[in-house]
Amino acid sequence: MTGGYLDAASGLPWHPMAVEALQAALADGWADPRRLTGPGRRSAVLLDAARAAIAAEFGIQPDELIVTPSGAHALHQAVLGSLAGRHRAGRTLVHSAVEHSTVLKAAQWHAERGGSVTVVPVDGTGRVDPDEFLAAARAPGVATAVLQAANHEVGTRQPVAEVVAGLAELGVDAGPAGPPLVVDASQQLVYGEPPAAVPIFTADPRLWGGPAGVGLLVVRRGTRWLPPFPVDDSEAGRGLGVPNVPVLVAAAAALRATRADRAAHAARLAGYLDQLRHRIPQLVPDAMLLGPDRAADRLPHLLTFSCPYLDGEALLTELDRNGFAVSSGSSCTSDSLIPSHVLVAMGALSSGNVRISLHPGVEQADLDRFLAVLPVAVAEVRSANPQPVPLTGAGPGTAAEPVPLTGAEPGPVLDSRGRRCPLPILDLARALPELPIGAELTLLADDPAAASDIPAWCRMTGQQLVATDGAGRYQVRRVR
Amino acid sequence: MTGGYLDAASGLPWHPMAVEALQAALADGWADPRRLTGPGRRSAVLLDAARAAIAAEFGIQPDELIVTPSGAHALHQAVLGSLAGRHRAGRTLVHSAVEHSTVLKAAQWHAERGGSVTVVPVDGTGRVDPDEFLAAARAPGVATAVLQAANHEVGTRQPVAEVVAGLAELGVDAGPAGPPLVVDASQQLVYGEPPAAVPIFTADPRLWGGPAGVGLLVVRRGTRWLPPFPVDDSEAGRGLGVPNVPVLVAAAAALRATRADRAAHAARLAGYLDQLRHRIPQLVPDAMLLGPDRAADRLPHLLTFSCPYLDGEALLTELDRNGFAVSSGSSCTSDSLIPSHVLVAMGALSSGNVRISLHPGVEQADLDRFLAVLPVAVAEVRSANPQPVPLTGAGPGTAAEPVPLTGAEPGPVLDSRGRRCPLPILDLARALPELPIGAELTLLADDPAAASDIPAWCRMTGQQLVATDGAGRYQVRRVR
Repeated sequence: MTGGYLDAASGLPWHPMAVEALQAALADGWADPRRLTGPGRRSAVLLDAARAAIAAEFGIQPDELIVTPSGAHALHQAVLGSLAGRHRAGRTLVHSAVEHSTVLKAAQWHAERGGSVTVVPVDGTGRVDPDEFLAAARAPGVATAVLQAANHEVGTRQPVAEVVAGLAELGVDAGPAGPPLVVDASQQLVYGEPPAAVPIFTADPRLWGGPAGVGLLVVRRGTRWLPPFPVDDSEAGRGLGVPNVPVLVAAAAALRATRADRAAHAARLAGYLDQLRHRIPQLVPDAMLLGPDRAADRLPHLLTFSCPYLDGEALLTELDRNGFAVSSGSSCTSDSLIPSHVLVAMGALSSGNVRISLHPGVEQADLDRFLAVLPVAVAEVRSANPQPVPLTGAGPGTAAEPVPLTGAEPGPVLDSRGRRCPLPILDLARALPELPIGAELTLLADDPAAASDIPAWCRMTGQQLVATDGAGRYQVRRVR
Repeated sequence: MTGGYLDAASGLPWHPMAVEALQAALADGWADPRRLTGPGRRSAVLLDAARAAIAAEFGIQPDELIVTPSGAHALHQAVLGSLAGRHRAGRTLVHSAVEHSTVLKAAQWHAERGGSVTVVPVDGTGRVDPDEFLAAARAPGVATAVLQAANHEVGTRQPVAEVVAGLAELGVDAGPAGPPLVVDASQQLVYGEPPAAVPIFTADPRLWGGPAGVGLLVVRRGTRWLPPFPVDDSEAGRGLGVPNVPVLVAAAAALRATRADRAAHAARLAGYLDQLRHRIPQLVPDAMLLGPDRAADRLPHLLTFSCPYLDGEALLTELDRNGFAVSSGSSCTSDSLIPSHVLVAMGALSSGNVRISLHPGVEQADLDRFLAVLPVAVAEVRSANPQPVPLTGAGPGTAAEPVPLTGAEPGPVLDSRGRRCPLPILDLARALPELPIGAELTLLADDPAAASDIPAWCRMTGQQLVATDGAGRYQVRRVR
């Protein structure tokens, strides 16, 4: 890994301690730990030691940890297992609008089987309101509520402690097993603490330099939870298949090594993040930071900024060509063309977003180089944009129906039909300043992303979306 | 691993080539291969190469291979995914009585959700009759049939080719996608060929020195199959979570290395197996070989023998103390107290069975040492058996109802109630020779294992079970 790897939140190379631990565990950890033979017992000893080490880091009992085949498996089993265990309480799942796509998949799975799902919206920084979340979680028939500790795309911390306290206070739907809260703690756990007093949480060792092929699911004692998929006698009847003991040993070693230095890492990375937050809006025209301003409200190593009027994938490619790996801040994988549900829920632009996430090996020189490369790359990609469409006068016979959406005088028309994201907002950004302040235009855009991008652009730039017909017509007023 | 490891069918240490391959893959295989960044692309290259290598060994196309988190996951997804893909054909699952317990778990999962299950019995060697299997598979409403290539406990090869040919000929329930046969090829693939013309099969890399944490599921093109559990865009929409690329690379390397020498390995191990089959019945009183006699009808590296009148777990422990790891031939894990469904289905004794499975590193000296240790260990364990209960005359007021189960004269009574397996058959084996040939006794035994063990013992020793009342009374005639 070079210092150009600024995509730590997508996973890190194996920590050197993980490599060492795996190699040391190969001789004694290959056998099925459930076997009563000598090799089986030696493997079981390693498995128990790794489990105990992880449990100690998390502040839990070893039997509260269920090892799963991946972080995604852990999250699916957390959500669907909680729903299964609490099916008597009801069939409603509550989750925030900005959970990992894995939670959304679990919710879809649940809904396809007759369950219902309540999605709690977030504010412009990506945070749920705790009272709103609590109101949804206390509704009749709610079996489980899911709230991430911190968002994986923009770094926003969620009010987990407030929600836990509120659920405990209300006692609603909690039962003797405590509040039915599932917390995705994956990003939070790299430098932060495990969520306190939460019955179920999950983590992904890849984020702290552990191997793929392991996910961690914590189900605290007394919690109602049932395996949602077939199991055997692995993981005390809560898992399936022969565990990969050396890989779990590696995950535990990486966790201990990373967390031993977590305060120092977090402080240093937060300092780097401050530099980036300060410099990027200066260096990149129109760039806007996403997520909360206050450092306490966000992760110390993760930053997303919006870089409008360009194709985000093209910018990623350009940065990659310069040796920098970042994420588009879109859904779980960057080759998805679906706009990120997180950014849509925040009311941000769906395209042109860049997520930077730092790992402990990053140095000042890497940052300086990145800040030198970024503006050039943005300019390069933007220069490839096609010409914006011109404003046309509106009138009978023109492409646009001359009737405005409101009762005001018909304004000029900007016909962006057939042009894909980000071109409609590029057209709008170029055309609107041609009008006098207070005047309006009608934008026609049939790209589905425009439905969220036009309102997002107006909000972010301080212009006014006067009206939309929901069918590709947007009436926009120049305010500034 | 020492030469005392005779439990290869439970898994092997990582092949040296697997260790080497994993280490080589760490630098470029840690990233999520779905990412469009440089690290992601390098990881994808390794993933594709490993997939292609496995596909080449299996004689399939790379996109026909689905990587799963374990062999058990592969088998569950094979069976339940085939049922899901063919739900229009019906909801009946057919499987042999001696499939891996994972298949039985999948069947139970299916049955709990309203599906039906047909179990095809096996003969005394553990083999299904192909005509009987075909008759079950062609019944109306059958969605999927499951047949292992070779049994994991006794090594018996199943008539997969005959069943495939029969299904193709009949065309019944096959549809355009070919016959709905799922084959568990795990044990077969170590030294043998992948099953030909089979739409779905699975394998477990642990059996050829690959790591845990990987299972292989092959779904041939044109086969109706749907993911039975939640997926994301991993494995072309058929998997879940970030794949552990270095571990898959290791599995592929172990496969290539093992199969490169498979003919030589198989021939040498088959020779060792012949020695064991010849010597064990000579060295161990009352020992009986299980499975087919003919070498072509069984795996070249796996042998199970029945060693009655002792506690199988105690024998395993005694052998383990002498440095030998074997399996009890019981269910999927040896710490299960449930009698092996495989041995019950074959009509074998449920206790006192020993499975020996050889790995390529075994040498003649290991065998000689084992054959020296085994008889001593058996004698040691048998000497710890409690005294057998004596025969008592039957009559009014005795423990046994004096009325025989058939119309014959009441015989003496052997009261083994309260004694656990293997004591009831030990009591019977001691008492029966006290009777004249042709005479009968009534055995009382309330241990659940007796229900299969008494008939099995009579069959294996050539004595006659005249009648049983299904409630713990067994009328046995001395024949020889």
